[in-house]
Amino acid sequence: MKSLYEIRFSGSGGQGIITAGMVLGEGASLFDGKYVVQTQSYGPEARGGACKTELIIADYPVNYPKPILADILLAMSQAAYDKYIHEIKDDAFVVVDSSLVQYKPAKGVYPVPITKLAAEEVGLKVTANVVALGVISSLTKIASYEALERALLSRVPRGTEEINKKALALGKKLEFKDNV
Amino acid sequence: MKSLYEIRFSGSGGQGIITAGMVLGEGASLFDGKYVVQTQSYGPEARGGACKTELIIADYPVNYPKPILADILLAMSQAAYDKYIHEIKDDAFVVVDSSLVQYKPAKGVYPVPITKLAAEEVGLKVTANVVALGVISSLTKIASYEALERALLSRVPRGTEEINKKALALGKKLEFKDNV
Repeated sequence: MKSLYEIRFSGSGGQGIITAGMVLGEGASLFDGKYVVQTQSYGPEARGGACKTELIIADYPVNYPKPILADILLAMSQAAYDKYIHEIKDDAFVVVDSSLVQYKPAKGVYPVPITKLAAEEVGLKVTANVVALGVISSLTKIASYEALERALLSRVPRGTEEINKKALALGKKLEFKDNV
Repeated sequence: MKSLYEIRFSGSGGQGIITAGMVLGEGASLFDGKYVVQTQSYGPEARGGACKTELIIADYPVNYPKPILADILLAMSQAAYDKYIHEIKDDAFVVVDSSLVQYKPAKGVYPVPITKLAAEEVGLKVTANVVALGVISSLTKIASYEALERALLSRVPRGTEEINKKALALGKKLEFKDNV
């Protein structure tokens, strides 16, 4: 494990990208003892358009974020993938929603049909952001599964706890192979 | 109106400070046509402790935030007030939850018993963050009331729309006087 990770979650408005970042940030800090800074930008074009949040998760206090080369990239839309795939470190983990994105196979690129899994396995497409978190936890160990689950359950609307737990748990079942 | 505002919302964990910032950021960008960058930090100490989010709302695209002197400060806890009251511009608006904070009267400092109003007028203490947003909109015009309401309603759990609208609307009824 490194002592500092730069993380970028990106996709379209309405996919819950920023919420996923908040769950990761809260989980890593409150329950895993890390320091986290999270940034999101909104523009007039954000409506249904590109959307991203960036986190720095570190073992020590961090001040303000700078434009980053990601250690971990989540790309949930074609536009997000095209825009950010080159802004990564050599040893980055890249998780691509292969049900939405045409990607180029490469070392460190993990295609997972996230939105399709959310619709078919969880039964609710809008849980794709939570499925993505489960995948990232399972693959990268950036936050413990327990921390994410606690942060998730403190944030989701009452009555949706079970379906969200199911969505998060999906990631644990997957086997990851570099797509090369 | 200035063309760029620096805004700091601060309080305790669990008060919905970060959510309030997201509603403001989404409202200002999606419905008022502004550019927004929002940052929040979490530390292991955040649990029940200090909590803040910072936004830059501008008429033009902004990159990354720097440590800021606020144009608008919301202080929902004593610790937040004590920590940030000196990090403001000369012409800043300061909104203090006077039901929770001992503050020093000064030009630009607006005491509002936010949490008390949420409990007594709305009937639900946890809407204090939404009451605060209504107060800030009414006082500073940083985002239009309509934009905030649309952003709010797209974010709150189904079934809580009416109580959240009521909480936001409270700010419109208040009369503001500098407390000097």
